[in-house]
Amino acid sequence: MRPGKVGRLPTSAASWDLHAAIERLAALNDDPAAGGITREVFTPTYAAATEQVAEAMRLAGLSVRTDAFGNLRGRWPGADPGTPAVLTGSHYDTTLNAGRFDGVVGVLGAIAAVRRLRDAGFAPARSIDVIGFAGEEPRFGSGCIGSRAFMGQLTRADLDRMHDRHGTSLAEALRGYGLDPDAVPEAAEDPSSIHVFVELHIEQGAVLEAAGVPIGVVTRIAAPHDLRLTWTGAATHAGATPMDLRHDALAGAAEAMVELERLACDAPSGTAVGTVGVLGVAPGAINVVPGEVRMEVDIRDSDLDARNGVVDGFLSASRVIAARRGLELGVETITEDTPAECSPLVVEAARAACAELEIPYREMISGAYHDAMVLGAAIPMGMIFVPSAGGVSHHPDEYTAPEELDRGVAVLAGALARLAG
Amino acid sequence: MRPGKVGRLPTSAASWDLHAAIERLAALNDDPAAGGITREVFTPTYAAATEQVAEAMRLAGLSVRTDAFGNLRGRWPGADPGTPAVLTGSHYDTTLNAGRFDGVVGVLGAIAAVRRLRDAGFAPARSIDVIGFAGEEPRFGSGCIGSRAFMGQLTRADLDRMHDRHGTSLAEALRGYGLDPDAVPEAAEDPSSIHVFVELHIEQGAVLEAAGVPIGVVTRIAAPHDLRLTWTGAATHAGATPMDLRHDALAGAAEAMVELERLACDAPSGTAVGTVGVLGVAPGAINVVPGEVRMEVDIRDSDLDARNGVVDGFLSASRVIAARRGLELGVETITEDTPAECSPLVVEAARAACAELEIPYREMISGAYHDAMVLGAAIPMGMIFVPSAGGVSHHPDEYTAPEELDRGVAVLAGALARLAG
Repeated sequence: MRPGKVGRLPTSAASWDLHAAIERLAALNDDPAAGGITREVFTPTYAAATEQVAEAMRLAGLSVRTDAFGNLRGRWPGADPGTPAVLTGSHYDTTLNAGRFDGVVGVLGAIAAVRRLRDAGFAPARSIDVIGFAGEEPRFGSGCIGSRAFMGQLTRADLDRMHDRHGTSLAEALRGYGLDPDAVPEAAEDPSSIHVFVELHIEQGAVLEAAGVPIGVVTRIAAPHDLRLTWTGAATHAGATPMDLRHDALAGAAEAMVELERLACDAPSGTAVGTVGVLGVAPGAINVVPGEVRMEVDIRDSDLDARNGVVDGFLSASRVIAARRGLELGVETITEDTPAECSPLVVEAARAACAELEIPYREMISGAYHDAMVLGAAIPMGMIFVPSAGGVSHHPDEYTAPEELDRGVAVLAGALARLAG
Repeated sequence: MRPGKVGRLPTSAASWDLHAAIERLAALNDDPAAGGITREVFTPTYAAATEQVAEAMRLAGLSVRTDAFGNLRGRWPGADPGTPAVLTGSHYDTTLNAGRFDGVVGVLGAIAAVRRLRDAGFAPARSIDVIGFAGEEPRFGSGCIGSRAFMGQLTRADLDRMHDRHGTSLAEALRGYGLDPDAVPEAAEDPSSIHVFVELHIEQGAVLEAAGVPIGVVTRIAAPHDLRLTWTGAATHAGATPMDLRHDALAGAAEAMVELERLACDAPSGTAVGTVGVLGVAPGAINVVPGEVRMEVDIRDSDLDARNGVVDGFLSASRVIAARRGLELGVETITEDTPAECSPLVVEAARAACAELEIPYREMISGAYHDAMVLGAAIPMGMIFVPSAGGVSHHPDEYTAPEELDRGVAVLAGALARLAG
């Protein structure tokens, strides 16, 4: 802590512990039998998690409120309430059968950082707001809906257009959660009210682990261009249809997948990635040539030109493949985000905190997108990474050791002190 | 009819009509909303279908019984009951969301052929048995279970081992249908009690339509080698995992699918086909690299050496692909059948019937497998094809025109008269 900025504050409830809180939140799980954690946004289980996180905020002395989209916000008022606040946090929803750290570390870790600062007697000049964004994982097709609502990027029409895999619209889910879809515009925050946003997160890749470095200071965030492709051919008999009379939707899709991988590997940036994570085959019988394939494709890079090159190359190759095979090809964009540059303010605060704490760090790009990417469109932002064992994420085996989390919290606290001091 | 072989028999109920009977059977459907017909073997809907077919058999004057596997059999006793019988029929179960003709044409068409012979005053020397095999479509992974039980090829252990996609074992399904799995060996027929088997069927391909020929006389039946491949990689983050650190199960499977298609197209027989009809991706999220892919592969040919070449080439290519990508590959054989040669007795009877009726025909190979293939291991057999519009089968659009069906029934009746006379 810098001299002159500290001032002892009332000590918050001593019983709270970050690691125990992570475990308690992990018990709120809609599919424990699968081995991982399933806690999608706006479910009853998510509501229980909101209550648990809000209670942790209150124990840390924060004044808690939720906005019109269900984003949960706890405020530590600064000495100078008229100045823009320092915002920190992440999300506590999960994807299906996921791990316990993704997002949660940035919300509960921010609460732990606030507690650390309070315990050290720090008194912020700017208010420090801890936020849990409602829905970073793509239950409704696109990720980061909480931060998009926060940035005023979700229209009323989006709420009806976006559906989950059960056919529930985002508007219906909001209503089920007790929120009014028509009020969602009120969740939009004036960007000038936020000084900076800092997000602590697990890396979700293996770069830190491979380098043996405990902290990543993020300088750029890659952004996805997500596509849904529908390949339509003819569902004919697998035995009675000679190879030259087929319109096999899956054979076409397979050829396109090989091409996607080649394009991503050959992209000039060296950082492009291309993934087909969702693929459904109809009618789905061993003795029927597939008549339809629906695939969801995720193409990312922190270099927008390189990403556009992969997207364009993949779509034109897919069109050539479809035409040659007599398949119809439908293409729909799910998400198209802009890679974001981290703010030098945040990068410098994180570097200085590492230096003071004598914790080694590495500057790096985030291949995963985060709420910070969405905020980056109008708010100076940055991220602090802690290692992911084996680079595993969105999976029950996701793991970051307690001492690694503690280092992340210490660096976050140091950065917040510098940014809010 | 050949002179000296005819003799007027009591006229059966006049109200029965093949085309109306096909429509009535099509109404027994577990998923009408899908647009096609779903009537899997051993379901309550299948039981209702059995009752409907049995009633049609009785109206045609046949004496009806079911065997220990649920195969439905109606007998027209011959003048010489000690001689081996002429067996004709097919199946009346369907795959998911299928058409109304596949299999049904061979069962109801055989009843129509019997009625045609009776109306013409034909008196068979050999008994003519009409059979509906219980389960030709692969509800339990392998097709032709009714005819396999008939041939004594299903062991008690098979009944526990084979499961449908809901996890119901074949033994459980038999019990639910009111049959005793332990009694299934009693369904095995002594092959020497059958003179020949003749199966009328829709082509399920577009060869007859393309050639403008109404009847196909089948000379060989291609047989499938069906495989289940499991590709296991690492379910890592689609953004945070660089291309060179991935173990993408779907990318490996895609490469193998491209190779399968190439191998089938290049097979020296010119008649090999390779299909991936079932493919499941886990965990199945747009932002997760696929950690597991399960695929079901169907490779067929009437030329066994050529088929083996495709199977061997595909498996060795898959192993190379898996090793290069750091994926585990599991391989399991679902079905491995031997292509069958049709009996000259049946081929000649069908040709002679066509000639007498002045109906053009074409000798051809069956790319689809049928119960006739299974019986062919020990019983002389043959098949008669009628056209499939557009080659479409296993699909709601499956269609054969009434006059095409009538021609098929006429040729079947003529062949039966020659074989049973």
